[in-house]
Amino acid sequence: MKNEILYVLLNEYADHEPAFLAAAINCDERAIRTNPKYINKVVAPTLGEVRSCSGFRTVPDYSFDSMPEEYAALILIGGYQWMSEDAERVVPIVKCAIEKGIAVGAICNAASFLARHGFLNSVKHTGNGLEQLKLWGGENYTNESGYVHEQAVRDGCMVTANGSGYLEFAKELLLLLENDPPEYIEMFYRFQKEGFVKMCQSQNEHP
Amino acid sequence: MKNEILYVLLNEYADHEPAFLAAAINCDERAIRTNPKYINKVVAPTLGEVRSCSGFRTVPDYSFDSMPEEYAALILIGGYQWMSEDAERVVPIVKCAIEKGIAVGAICNAASFLARHGFLNSVKHTGNGLEQLKLWGGENYTNESGYVHEQAVRDGCMVTANGSGYLEFAKELLLLLENDPPEYIEMFYRFQKEGFVKMCQSQNEHP
Repeated sequence: MKNEILYVLLNEYADHEPAFLAAAINCDERAIRTNPKYINKVVAPTLGEVRSCSGFRTVPDYSFDSMPEEYAALILIGGYQWMSEDAERVVPIVKCAIEKGIAVGAICNAASFLARHGFLNSVKHTGNGLEQLKLWGGENYTNESGYVHEQAVRDGCMVTANGSGYLEFAKELLLLLENDPPEYIEMFYRFQKEGFVKMCQSQNEHP
Repeated sequence: MKNEILYVLLNEYADHEPAFLAAAINCDERAIRTNPKYINKVVAPTLGEVRSCSGFRTVPDYSFDSMPEEYAALILIGGYQWMSEDAERVVPIVKCAIEKGIAVGAICNAASFLARHGFLNSVKHTGNGLEQLKLWGGENYTNESGYVHEQAVRDGCMVTANGSGYLEFAKELLLLLENDPPEYIEMFYRFQKEGFVKMCQSQNEHP
């Protein structure tokens, strides 16, 4: 399905990193969307459950073998297994997505994984700090000058973020995917970043 | 198991609301903890998978019928089903936890659910705004003066929060459960709230 957003989860994936993006895709402010622009799908090495950092168990919709060839975005969620053999199997999937001009997002250690395999060498990008990208990337990472020290960076079809940039990651991908009007996406971001209490206060101060 | 933390998930639960708390319970800064103080477990109406707001599918560890009688904390995660028949089945579970002095957390619509069933009448508390608590609580909510307009509120063994108070909710529960030293919990909170980039900047400004 061309409107599917594929979240790649390996074991020990970071629970919070897909949460805001995926919820914004599937829900509006008050309910599940009746006619969402995109459909969230979970992809994992096999169809067996994947276990998060917290120990929560998620059932994949697709395995690496059964995932579709056409889709709207490939989102690589961070965690502790991005140097594993399972992670190696993601390399051709990313290569194919980039070649097709499909949106690719990578957060936390998944951004380091992109550095490790040379996928950050022609885009502005960020990740868990320049030192970690250099450490993971070694000789395959040749784009130190493209590193931007921000919570999330969007360049063309690629969005990268550090692990605490979960909200900025969501925002940049929602903008790239044109999931909602930009003002709506900005409001979603500010509400989750600043919080209900602070936003109530600023509304009272500036009625 | 007395050290289990039980997360009550109904269908259409909010993905981001358990994520930070549960990850902090099971991981330290860099990896899965080898000897965690508490173990995360998912409880749902049945042992069948529950579907989040995003459409992610989680496998429960316990059903309402098979959950243990002894445990460390009961965490009610918000979402769109807290007025359903499944939610009604949570009422005696909460009653029992409160009577035993077990830690109870409720965020977003789960806090409104507590108001609806009279569980907020003898504690300071918050939720998705006073108006929503009054709307859901009706005659069963008699503690308007106990409402505090903060992101999260801890009073004795109970922690309540609004839906955007996911980080403050985690922080107050981690403090209540003494999961780590308070300075460590504060650092975890600040890192996720302010973000890696801002924290790097303040470290450079105040070396």
